[in-house]
Formats: sequence, C-alpha cells, structure tokens
Amino acid sequence: MPVNYSPSTPEQLWPVPGVALGTAPARIKSWSRDDLLLVSLAPGTQASGVFTRNQFCAAPVMVCREHLARRAPLRALVVNAGNANAGTGTRGLADARATCTAAAAALDCAPEEVLPFSTGVIMEPLPVDRIVEALPACRAVLSGAGWFAAACAIMTTDTVPKGASRRVEVDGVPITVTGIAKGAGMIAPNMATLLGFVATDAPIGRALLDGLAAEIAGASFNRITIDGDTSTNDSFVLLATHRAPLSPIERTDDPRLPAVKAVISAVAVELAQAIVRDGEGATKFISILVEGGRNVAECDRVARTIAHSPLVKTAFFASDPNLGRIVCAIGNAGIDDLDPARVSFWLDDVAVVAGGSRATSYREEEGKRVMLKPEITVRVALGRGQARAAVWTCDLSHQYVSINADYRS
Amino acid sequence: MPVNYSPSTPEQLWPVPGVALGTAPARIKSWSRDDLLLVSLAPGTQASGVFTRNQFCAAPVMVCREHLARRAPLRALVVNAGNANAGTGTRGLADARATCTAAAAALDCAPEEVLPFSTGVIMEPLPVDRIVEALPACRAVLSGAGWFAAACAIMTTDTVPKGASRRVEVDGVPITVTGIAKGAGMIAPNMATLLGFVATDAPIGRALLDGLAAEIAGASFNRITIDGDTSTNDSFVLLATHRAPLSPIERTDDPRLPAVKAVISAVAVELAQAIVRDGEGATKFISILVEGGRNVAECDRVARTIAHSPLVKTAFFASDPNLGRIVCAIGNAGIDDLDPARVSFWLDDVAVVAGGSRATSYREEEGKRVMLKPEITVRVALGRGQARAAVWTCDLSHQYVSINADYRS
Repeated sequence: MPVNYSPSTPEQLWPVPGVALGTAPARIKSWSRDDLLLVSLAPGTQASGVFTRNQFCAAPVMVCREHLARRAPLRALVVNAGNANAGTGTRGLADARATCTAAAAALDCAPEEVLPFSTGVIMEPLPVDRIVEALPACRAVLSGAGWFAAACAIMTTDTVPKGASRRVEVDGVPITVTGIAKGAGMIAPNMATLLGFVATDAPIGRALLDGLAAEIAGASFNRITIDGDTSTNDSFVLLATHRAPLSPIERTDDPRLPAVKAVISAVAVELAQAIVRDGEGATKFISILVEGGRNVAECDRVARTIAHSPLVKTAFFASDPNLGRIVCAIGNAGIDDLDPARVSFWLDDVAVVAGGSRATSYREEEGKRVMLKPEITVRVALGRGQARAAVWTCDLSHQYVSINADYRS
Repeated sequence: MPVNYSPSTPEQLWPVPGVALGTAPARIKSWSRDDLLLVSLAPGTQASGVFTRNQFCAAPVMVCREHLARRAPLRALVVNAGNANAGTGTRGLADARATCTAAAAALDCAPEEVLPFSTGVIMEPLPVDRIVEALPACRAVLSGAGWFAAACAIMTTDTVPKGASRRVEVDGVPITVTGIAKGAGMIAPNMATLLGFVATDAPIGRALLDGLAAEIAGASFNRITIDGDTSTNDSFVLLATHRAPLSPIERTDDPRLPAVKAVISAVAVELAQAIVRDGEGATKFISILVEGGRNVAECDRVARTIAHSPLVKTAFFASDPNLGRIVCAIGNAGIDDLDPARVSFWLDDVAVVAGGSRATSYREEEGKRVMLKPEITVRVALGRGQARAAVWTCDLSHQYVSINADYRS
C-alpha cells in the first residue's frame, strides 16, 4: 500500500481541452489489462521533454529526442507498458519508428508528429505487431475523460495509478493542468523508470516550454529516489495544447506565467511524490533536506548519499533510530573539506547531532517516536554556507527485495 | 552461511614470531563472548595503515593516524567490537586515547605505541571503563596461537571468523604471514566497516611498508563492496615484526620482495573475499570484471555501478537472468561518451550482449543456468581502450534487510 496516498478517482482527473486518451490491451506481457495508451493532441500542441541520462537510453527515447528536435507541434503520444525497448539496438529503433508510423496512420498525421514511450523489461524485442494491432482499439475509445484509464494502462510494478489535476484562472479564463505518471522502482536522480506526462491548455510557447519542463522536472521528478538506479527509459513530457482562449505566453516575464507555472509544478510534485509513496516495498515517505552547504550540488550530493544508503533505508524500515548510519552517510558524500564538528541534524523536530556528535538533549525514545511515523523529515545542516537541496525517498523493506526478485515471473 | 567459505581452524592460523594475541569479554554490547582483543607486538615492529575516507571518521581512526605519523615502531593494537566510537566528538577522542593509555599500562609501553580500533554501532559513547577493566584479562592470555580467538572477538554481524595464513621461504628462511579480518555489511569502496590486520615476521622497512599497505589494500579490501556504504571505522594495518633472521627489506627492487609481497597479497585477497562471501545475507559471490576502458578509473566506476545496483543484486538473489538491469547499470556509470554499440558482456562463458544489444546466440536458459550458480563472473567489454578493473560483490537478499533492520535489537 502506498504511504499516505490515495489515487485520484476518474472524476478528479479533469479533461484538458485538446487532449484525448484511449487505451487497449496489446498483451505485451501475459497480462489481461490495457497496456497500450494512445494520446491524441489537437493541432498546434507544443511539447517539451526531459529524458534519462542513462547512456544505454532506450530506442523510444532516441526517437522522442529526434522528433522534439524538429521544434514543430505534435499530434500524438503512444505508450506501452511491459517492454522497455531498451538494449535492443537497431531493431529496437526500427520498432519505435514502426510504432510512430502506426499511430500516425491511426490519427492521420505524420510519424514525426508522434512521440513513442516504452516501459518494462529491458533487452527483450518489442512485440511491435501487437502494438500495431491494438492501436485502432485505442483510437476507437479516445476521450478527454480518459486520463484515469491512461494512468492505469502505463503501470508496471506500480500498485496504484497516479494522476493529478489542478485549475487556475488566468485573466478570467480557467486553465486546466492534468498529469499522469508511472514508476515505482529504478527511480533515481536524473529521471528514473518513470514516465510522466503533464498537459495544459495554456498557450505556452515552445521556447518557454523547454525551460519550464527542465525547471519543473528538476524540482519534482528529479528530486525523488527509490533505489538509486536510473532507468534507460525515463521521460517527462510537458504538453501545451494552446486551446485556452488567451494570447500566447512566450516570455519568462509574462505576468500570467507564475500562476500557470505554480499549478503545473503542483501537479508534477504531487505525481513525483506519489511515485515515492508507491515506491517498491515502501512503508515510509522520507524527506531529506540539506542546508548550509557552499552550493546546491554539495547539498544535493549529501541528500542523495543519505537517501541511497541501504543501511539508512533499512533502519527507517525497522523504525530503528540507528542514526549513526546517517552520520556515516554524510561522511561518505565526498565533500573533502567537510568539518564534522560543524554538522548537525534533526529528525523532524528532534535534534540528533549537534556540532558533530550526539546532541546532549537527544533521547533514544524521542528518536524512536519519530522513526515510527510514516512520514519523516531528516534535516541536515552542514554549517559551511547558505545553499540547500531536498530529495524525497522511501525505506528499503523485504517487499522491495521480493518485488525485484520476482519481477519477471 | 557464507558462500563457498569455510573458516580456517585455529591450527591453520600460524603464529607470526613477534605477535601475541589475547581476548576477553568486555561486555561492550549485551553479548556473552570475548569482544576485546589485545595484540602485543615485539619491539621493532613496523606498521602501516590504510583508513576510511569517510569524513566522519571514527575517533580511533584519528588516533591511529596520529600514532602512525610518528613513523616509530609500535608495541600494541587494541580492538573492541560492539561500539564504533564514531560520531562521538571530543569525548570519543578522549576515550580512544584512554584505551591506548590502558593498553600501554598493561604492556609497559607508551600510549603512542598503541593503535586503537573500534567497530560496531555509531554514535554511542564508548564504554571505556569496561575496556580498561578487561585489558588485564586479555594480557593474561596473550599467545602466538591466539589468531583464531582474535578473529572471533572482532566479529560483529559476521557469521564466521575470518583468518588466513601463508608461508614462503626466502633465502632459506621461512616467512609467515597471518591475518584476520571482520566485516559483513557497510562494505564499500575505500575501506568499509572492515578491520583487517595482517602480520609478517619479514623485516620490511617502514617506507616500503607504506607503499605495500596501500597497494595491497587497493587490490584486496578496496576491491570489495557489499552495500555501497563506506564506514567511519575502516582500517587495514600491515605489521612487520622483523623477527625473521634476514637483513632488512628496504627497497622496491629488493629481489626478495616479490615472494613476500605475493604471500601478503594472497592473505589479504583471501580475507577480502571472505568478507564478501560472508556478506550480510549473501547467497552468491559475484566477480565483476570490466575491460576495454580508456582508464582504470572508468572501468572501476562501471564495475561498482553494477555492483551497487539494488536491481542487479536482487536479480542475482532470485537467480533471474533479468540482464537488462546490467545494461542499465552500465549506462548509469556516468561515462558521458560511452558508445553503447561497442559494449558487450558475458555471464561466465555465456555471451549476453554483443555490440550493445542482445547477442544473437543468447538463450534465456543459458543465462538461467549461470544465474543459478553460487559463484558468477560478469565480464563487461567497453570497447574503447585497454584498461581493466575488477570488484567482488554479493547479492541483495531478504536476509540483508532482516540483518540491518534488526541489527541493534
């Protein structure tokens, strides 16, 4: 069960004018659910994407980058679950292109106007024929109300569908932002086995959208880590259909931008946190804030070293205030001139370490009290500057091992 | 149970002339076994050490560095299990010094001639009074035959004591090398919660010993990783008692050196591999060889990224040839200009990936056959140079989570 997360209902995921979604079963794995998603986008829809930095990036990621590089409007997304089409060489690339061609035929557009996405097992050939066969069934059910079904279709080891919607009024015009995401393991810095799609009808220009996608990913999906692995397929796409009756938002100083950006960010953060809350085997949601660093990069490094430590993660699973493991992780973050005597940390409101050693006020039962909670904040002060960074992570449980030991069976 | 490792018997750990070892129960944790070790060294014994790079290094590590910096012969080691004396600030430092003073009093030497070591829980005050009280009992049983008891006394989550002995004849004189080590978790690059002590009666000069300790640690203890965490206390100490009737070995081109170095290395490698074989929850021993890199550093990075991936480790635990996870880990190693199309890898004798995608000869049942073995070699060819590196690791099992979730209880 996810930690403090109840999935949105179908009714809570509002249609975004210009976006229609349809799903169908393509039997990509031996499952009996919809596992193929077709998203139809109104003419004039602008898109921007942020993708995995894994050098073995999947074939669909390469094709997405290519199609986005045209900087032209897009007409469709096609997403399959169950097979990552990664580590599949030139055949994989041909398969990703064939998927685009089939989606383009279904929607009467050009293959270059389609972005393909895949998630699932790596290094297995994509059953592209089954995808081609199932696309007409997706097209037949295209609907603006299809977000919930879409969130379900893209799941792999997720236990719940993840979607979020927000609205804001701009110059008297209601703007809708709706997004879905999938991902539960292989979640790490720089995008993870994570697919995230967020759409708005706000008329955001392409140049602005690029900066916005990167900034929002940096503050949401790139803040989360479950197991430190970065997948071959991670993709976050921000779509703007331009259907809201407003003049285009093209510049960073547009006074309408902050309100729109705030709702897009809220959706992205909700989705990103939902991924951690539904992290493989997660029983706790942990925020790690590192402050007092010389720069953001070193704060980020300390936060991720704590978040990735299997010893820290198992201590959280056990609700065991074995907090020396956090001290150890801080020391491992590779800050060569860190002065331990200036480091302090807190577990929620409890001071654990002050000036490099156990706070005199610290009592084990206070640590235990916090460790038992399902949501915990670790705050570290490095005492060497003003920069800060945060990551969200979860614990490491028996269930994580079970899920990942049994994934393919 | 360790993977393919049977501990040496007491008789198989040969005395090293000039070294006597005694153990006693100091009740540092609530256990009823010996947990304190005193090692007495003959006058003239040279020592060199390699220590953790964790910035939160433990108090005894600081004191060791200080005492070794004198570059004078040493007379004793004192080691406790159950408490790391790390994250303990100035009090911890005073406690480590008090331990040295007590050991010096027991052996009639100077405190600066003693090296202290601690392993166990971090951030708890060291019960130094109990150590001081138990030291006379250690002294009372000092014996050249005490290596096995010593290996037992320094254990924490280890399931078996780890010791090794080798002999070699140099100019007709028998040279003995005996070592012990502990460590089963928090084992990672750059020394881990690992204590390793290797002694020889060979008359190796101090300057030579420094280079030798670093080189040997680099090829043994620094090649292993269990969970990617580097502890606050890791220490490897190489001791030369100079008791063998040979003229001193002082220079790297001494013709007697290669034979001596070979036996010291063999002992260190056996101990290092024993730590992985007894890794927390380990069910498999995995060697990862990366070759064809531009330099050793990048080969090492790829090998460790594979070794640290929880997804790869759980696949090994499940004997599941979900080998795309290895592809993914290679792509995550941060080699920016890696060309996936030149990357290949093998599982033992089975070609899995050739030229960036699945080898045409690969059959899942062949992958499964290798994955079921208790010892597996992953060989990766990067196709971009001549450098190579290797690490040894183990899988990630339910037992790992249990051990680390319950460690303090």
